[in-house]
Amino acid sequence: MELYAPLFSDPAVDAHFSADAQVRAMLAVEVALAEAHAAAGLISRHAVDAIRAAAQVERYDLQSLARDAARAGNLAIPVVSRLTRETEAIDPAAAKMVHLGATSQDVIDTGMVLQLRAALPSLTEHLERAARAAARHARRHRRTPQAGRTWLQQATPITFGLKAAGWLDALERVRNRLQRAASEAFVLQFGGASGTLAALGPDADVVARSLADGLRLELPSLPWHAHRDRLVTLACALGVVTGTLGKIAMDLALLAQTEVAEAHEEHATGRGGSSTMPHKQNPVSAAVALAAAVRVPGLVSSMLAAMPQEHERGLGGWHAEWEVMPELVRLTSGAARSVGDALEHLAIDTARMGSNLEMTRGLIQAEAVVSALAPRLGRSAAHAIVEEASRRAAAAERPLAATLAEHADVVRVLSAEMISRLLEPGEYLGQADVFVDRVLAAWGRDGEDDA
Amino acid sequence: MELYAPLFSDPAVDAHFSADAQVRAMLAVEVALAEAHAAAGLISRHAVDAIRAAAQVERYDLQSLARDAARAGNLAIPVVSRLTRETEAIDPAAAKMVHLGATSQDVIDTGMVLQLRAALPSLTEHLERAARAAARHARRHRRTPQAGRTWLQQATPITFGLKAAGWLDALERVRNRLQRAASEAFVLQFGGASGTLAALGPDADVVARSLADGLRLELPSLPWHAHRDRLVTLACALGVVTGTLGKIAMDLALLAQTEVAEAHEEHATGRGGSSTMPHKQNPVSAAVALAAAVRVPGLVSSMLAAMPQEHERGLGGWHAEWEVMPELVRLTSGAARSVGDALEHLAIDTARMGSNLEMTRGLIQAEAVVSALAPRLGRSAAHAIVEEASRRAAAAERPLAATLAEHADVVRVLSAEMISRLLEPGEYLGQADVFVDRVLAAWGRDGEDDA
Amino acid sequence: MELYAPLFSDPAVDAHFSADAQVRAMLAVEVALAEAHAAAGLISRHAVDAIRAAAQVERYDLQSLARDAARAGNLAIPVVSRLTRETEAIDPAAAKMVHLGATSQDVIDTGMVLQLRAALPSLTEHLERAARAAARHARRHRRTPQAGRTWLQQATPITFGLKAAGWLDALERVRNRLQRAASEAFVLQFGGASGTLAALGPDADVVARSLADGLRLELPSLPWHAHRDRLVTLACALGVVTGTLGKIAMDLALLAQTEVAEAHEEHATGRGGSSTMPHKQNPVSAAVALAAAVRVPGLVSSMLAAMPQEHERGLGGWHAEWEVMPELVRLTSGAARSVGDALEHLAIDTARMGSNLEMTRGLIQAEAVVSALAPRLGRSAAHAIVEEASRRAAAAERPLAATLAEHADVVRVLSAEMISRLLEPGEYLGQADVFVDRVLAAWGRDGEDDA
Amino acid sequence: MELYAPLFSDPAVDAHFSADAQVRAMLAVEVALAEAHAAAGLISRHAVDAIRAAAQVERYDLQSLARDAARAGNLAIPVVSRLTRETEAIDPAAAKMVHLGATSQDVIDTGMVLQLRAALPSLTEHLERAARAAARHARRHRRTPQAGRTWLQQATPITFGLKAAGWLDALERVRNRLQRAASEAFVLQFGGASGTLAALGPDADVVARSLADGLRLELPSLPWHAHRDRLVTLACALGVVTGTLGKIAMDLALLAQTEVAEAHEEHATGRGGSSTMPHKQNPVSAAVALAAAVRVPGLVSSMLAAMPQEHERGLGGWHAEWEVMPELVRLTSGAARSVGDALEHLAIDTARMGSNLEMTRGLIQAEAVVSALAPRLGRSAAHAIVEEASRRAAAAERPLAATLAEHADVVRVLSAEMISRLLEPGEYLGQADVFVDRVLAAWGRDGEDDA
Repeated sequence: MELYAPLFSDPAVDAHFSADAQVRAMLAVEVALAEAHAAAGLISRHAVDAIRAAAQVERYDLQSLARDAARAGNLAIPVVSRLTRETEAIDPAAAKMVHLGATSQDVIDTGMVLQLRAALPSLTEHLERAARAAARHARRHRRTPQAGRTWLQQATPITFGLKAAGWLDALERVRNRLQRAASEAFVLQFGGASGTLAALGPDADVVARSLADGLRLELPSLPWHAHRDRLVTLACALGVVTGTLGKIAMDLALLAQTEVAEAHEEHATGRGGSSTMPHKQNPVSAAVALAAAVRVPGLVSSMLAAMPQEHERGLGGWHAEWEVMPELVRLTSGAARSVGDALEHLAIDTARMGSNLEMTRGLIQAEAVVSALAPRLGRSAAHAIVEEASRRAAAAERPLAATLAEHADVVRVLSAEMISRLLEPGEYLGQADVFVDRVLAAWGRDGEDDA
Repeated sequence: MELYAPLFSDPAVDAHFSADAQVRAMLAVEVALAEAHAAAGLISRHAVDAIRAAAQVERYDLQSLARDAARAGNLAIPVVSRLTRETEAIDPAAAKMVHLGATSQDVIDTGMVLQLRAALPSLTEHLERAARAAARHARRHRRTPQAGRTWLQQATPITFGLKAAGWLDALERVRNRLQRAASEAFVLQFGGASGTLAALGPDADVVARSLADGLRLELPSLPWHAHRDRLVTLACALGVVTGTLGKIAMDLALLAQTEVAEAHEEHATGRGGSSTMPHKQNPVSAAVALAAAVRVPGLVSSMLAAMPQEHERGLGGWHAEWEVMPELVRLTSGAARSVGDALEHLAIDTARMGSNLEMTRGLIQAEAVVSALAPRLGRSAAHAIVEEASRRAAAAERPLAATLAEHADVVRVLSAEMISRLLEPGEYLGQADVFVDRVLAAWGRDGEDDA
Repeated sequence: MELYAPLFSDPAVDAHFSADAQVRAMLAVEVALAEAHAAAGLISRHAVDAIRAAAQVERYDLQSLARDAARAGNLAIPVVSRLTRETEAIDPAAAKMVHLGATSQDVIDTGMVLQLRAALPSLTEHLERAARAAARHARRHRRTPQAGRTWLQQATPITFGLKAAGWLDALERVRNRLQRAASEAFVLQFGGASGTLAALGPDADVVARSLADGLRLELPSLPWHAHRDRLVTLACALGVVTGTLGKIAMDLALLAQTEVAEAHEEHATGRGGSSTMPHKQNPVSAAVALAAAVRVPGLVSSMLAAMPQEHERGLGGWHAEWEVMPELVRLTSGAARSVGDALEHLAIDTARMGSNLEMTRGLIQAEAVVSALAPRLGRSAAHAIVEEASRRAAAAERPLAATLAEHADVVRVLSAEMISRLLEPGEYLGQADVFVDRVLAAWGRDGEDDA
Repeated sequence: MELYAPLFSDPAVDAHFSADAQVRAMLAVEVALAEAHAAAGLISRHAVDAIRAAAQVERYDLQSLARDAARAGNLAIPVVSRLTRETEAIDPAAAKMVHLGATSQDVIDTGMVLQLRAALPSLTEHLERAARAAARHARRHRRTPQAGRTWLQQATPITFGLKAAGWLDALERVRNRLQRAASEAFVLQFGGASGTLAALGPDADVVARSLADGLRLELPSLPWHAHRDRLVTLACALGVVTGTLGKIAMDLALLAQTEVAEAHEEHATGRGGSSTMPHKQNPVSAAVALAAAVRVPGLVSSMLAAMPQEHERGLGGWHAEWEVMPELVRLTSGAARSVGDALEHLAIDTARMGSNLEMTRGLIQAEAVVSALAPRLGRSAAHAIVEEASRRAAAAERPLAATLAEHADVVRVLSAEMISRLLEPGEYLGQADVFVDRVLAAWGRDGEDDA
């Protein structure tokens, strides 16, 4: 047992990559293969029944399978050998019909595809959950002013709704791409020793089609033993999902800083505490997603680096995928679960958003003033004037309004009232509202969660 | 000048990432912005004309731009400042209209998108060229037997056409995905300081649409300053392209080994020579693609690692992309060019393919014998018999036919003639032909190049 | 249970990273901390005894620890809380003395250091075993000619002993660096909440020194909570070890190719078989090491990417290390074990080495001929002549001797006998012997294994 | 010209990797080789003089070299060919003595080593500069209280001097490791075609030693053509340097946030401005170092991934290093320069450090209170009490002192005066001062910069 699995991954996803689930998936491929042979009239229904009965994962000693896999070099060899023995005990004739025409890689790759297909819905459900929560924030806070920050400096005002709409839009994009990559990767692997299905003679194609149908997988034009682009594209899509989750987590962690305090994860008791500091409320969910965002790029690079596989079936590159691909799904699921949780249980302090906007005594509105001055003075001159006024205001800890009022060119062009209005963050939100509406409309489920 | 650029990238692609091209792209964004303002009636056509005249890259001293970019922290600041000055010299009023409403990142990101869009056709043309060459090999050699190799060991026979069809099918997949990722990434960046376009007031949306139209880019629901998933998805697609090119190069390098010698890059004079060994014909094209396949995964991982960008516009992550994204396109183009060249100029030695198939004295047909024995003896028993016969044959350097003939169970089931036929590689090619046809049909341009 | 653990790692190393071992290491830190407090006269020996009694890993329900770690955000919080409860049951007063002055990270980091220290000897023993085997090959085959291969082409002759000496020299370098990095990384982590040890008041330094002594760890100048360079340097050293193992595995895999067949892993029964091809002897050990060499670079890059940790203790970066660092040791150990096995059980076919040297009909001696001609004709002219003769020989499948003999300039300078001698690989081995001796001498244990 | 080079690297380092410098280094190897041959009495001094005269980089057309390198597959081939021609023009006899016994890789690898050796001093000087500045901050601010922050939350007080001492200690460690890795990597490459130096006959060893001496490089036991561990170890050391610089930059960027504002880069005019917001002072130096910390891990992983190079000289892996290794040095130098600049020109706001410590109304002292209560109430009970008081204080925005005063167990144990003192950050700094002294003493140059 890996002690950090419950922290870093979603248990529902994790379950699909247990030793148990892995063997189960491989056995499912073997049973479906027997079915396909039977459908083609090549083996009897009796044989299929015996193989299916023998293919109950409970019959298998996982530790001895692991030991034998270490010797054989892959897991299919001991699984097939055990399945054959188990079948033999039930029906000796049927045992001769196990694994017909397939190679180890057929079973391992197709088994992996089955595991991935089983695991993805939990992951995407977390992404949808995160999207719903982001949508709720976008809707509720579409007019809540907040400091926009660039280069980690307050820049110009935005709304918290706009920030949330950015999250939502990105979550939808990456979820859609993930599903597309998944649907393209869920393809049967069935080629026999070198990808010709020669061992099956003329029946090969019928068996292959039937096997694909039985497993509800696409039948490719030809086996993909050494061409891993579909799987790696899925790995990349997982990587981009995690990157986006990391971006959201980064925002949450920064907003939760003691000195910013505009939003924080509301924790169930015991979450995010400290063994020594009773006041701490650590952003655990953000930490999980950020950790995933640190780890996943390296795993994706391993999948890419493994692509140049030798000839018909590779050496080393293929083996490298076996643990990496599940790890990618697990880490992405943990990040998705965590960001889903954090967005659903996000405590938002709009008052603090407001007071943080006052913190610079008007500097955050510098661009607004430039924009107002530019048509009359030119953008460069306006920029220079406001830059100078900003510098003096900052140095003396005075309001920008005061230093602006001391500037003849400004006073000539803007009344005190106009300046005062220009320094109001809530009056300088631009298209924030429009953008939020557009994102919510594209999402298409506006309002459904607020009943 | 980077001395290895012509080796590792395609000069036609490289040209789109020169200092010159980079500034040109940014200036094109500024001109289009002025056009969009004019279209919205906000500035005069005169101003646009002045800005366009000022935006000729020849007017700019690239070295001083680079120096100033180092001080400012990005390239847009000096470019905009220079553009403003140049415009001023032409029409002082127009100078006030430069860069209105945009932030540095708008110009840098959109400029990068324009460069990427300009560069990709050369790259995809190389991929198409490689695909056409692979198709030709697939068609011509659909019945040329060759040793199939797994784990770098001879396994069972395939055809060289099947190998080439595998390349073709993968090349088409990765090219299609690249184009899809590109079309989704070619999106306008225009949000102003914090992504609200506040500086443009109520005209913002009209200007934005007009700018997108002017540059023929998609207008997104909202700016994507800190959401880099589209760009990173394109980076991933480039990574998968390179991985596939690396796989093909790996096959070519292995086939070209002195001891295999089934295919080699036919070189123009001077290519692949050695400074010391006059007989060498180094597979330079394969080396270039394999080097790219080593370098690109790390670059993709950098793009992924850069994704968690802070708040409205990030610090460090964004900057990390500036040189990495061009490098990815350059390396991928170099790999594509090289694999295109190698496949177009591939000397194929079918005689050697044939003699290599004889090298194991029949062992490569071991599976064929098992398949023939299995229906009568069961797969396990058949496997054990042939394994033992194979071992004896290998140890004594005798033909497998001979050791099989010494086995009572074999002789009982198979005549000498049947054994002899089973040991014929050309008779054990399975669906190779079918698969080749399927791939060529999917490719849909069968025969066009053989005229 | 991870089914592939026995394949990809060394079970003896793996054991140090089990859930059990991880909790045991953390409890060892807590006991040592209590000891240190007692040594400083701050708590009683009774309290230490109670804490030690409570700190038996068997008392802990690992699954519930994992569950609680997921809630708390790290494993130390539930471990400390359980330890406190267990101690309370034994001696309520002692329970107040648990974890005094430490923060979670102190326990987690120091626990990890203890696990790493425990695991490394098995790993280095595999490296030494591999070195001994390489030394044996170097000694035995210091005069066994073999084709030297560059760019995967036969280049000039070497000896197999020289190749093995290269492995030996590299194995020794990487093992030494690993041990140095390890010794520098085995440093106590003990700083309390923010690295000041403030909770311990004036006793802090005494406790810290005593704790370091108790655990036989170095006491650093100050805590290293957010400065991970020592650990990452160790990660890098593991990465370089795996890279070197991958290089050796690459050589072995290439030598084992059916068409080269100069060396292969001699397997125990059942290893490297195929589920479908009875003749296959897959190089499983090479595959394991090559897979590690594909995976480890990505893991090292994650450790590097995690380095910019925030302020006094980071968010996300630190968490990223928890599973990555053990994975690095595990994969490196699996690669070391595999290469050790492969080198110890390497079947070498010197006859085949010899016949492969004949394969090019003399071309492999082209440089030797150039070297002989150069002093008389100049290097360029000699190169051009031999290049031309090589090309003609290759095209016509004739011996190089024959085409050379047709060249007037050659004949003028070299007698037939001289040419014949120049074409003898065994006469063109240069410093191979000297280099082998030098490496064996540096290794310093020459002969010890050949008794 | 790469427009971002002056931003992302140190021009002084960059200069050593220009096209010019690269060819110059290779020519230096050729000249030294001629010298070594002359020293061994194999060629005349005249020949050396001619070769040296011909080896002036100004004689070489870099663009045509680049073009020919693309054809040949490496740069040594055209450089040697041009050098031979240039020498011929001076002294035809000498031209025959060019490049004797060497292979392309000898010249390329040794040339790279020379470039690295030339470039490193500038880089380490930046590291020393950064260390001196950190030492100055550590010394001056050894008693300046500042909020310690963990998980991006205020935790307990530290001093700014302690933070700076942590930087200093790490900078010294990574610089020392870099120099050690460099000294181990600066090793001659000289092996000829396959690493036997066969072309030089019995004189090989004399020439090799003389060449190593001439270039002041270590002579290895044997050539390292396909064993890249020394170079990759240097790459790793660069990676760890950049990681540490990224950590410092992360701290600086976080401290410079508008809402924290405890320290910021003081800029020369024009640095860190915004094209649109006149008030912005972007932390450009931090951005550069953080960008490097994002990019460098991927480059290190490429170096590691390139290690399994084939046989005597590899295909693809070696080529992958040519641009990656220089890029690593360049990026690390840019990060070092930037962090050096930032630390030297760091404006520190101690008043703000003080007021930020007040921000939590005493919560940052929670641990101090627990520590005071623990000896009387037990750690767990004390933790629970203070946790509850902290929560109430936070919810009601009241001082922790007030909610503590309402708790009977607290009042029973601590007087109001004691509580008040416990809530004073300056009284809870633990060993901060001791740690700072220890680091400064280890650094050993205390006070030298404060004159």
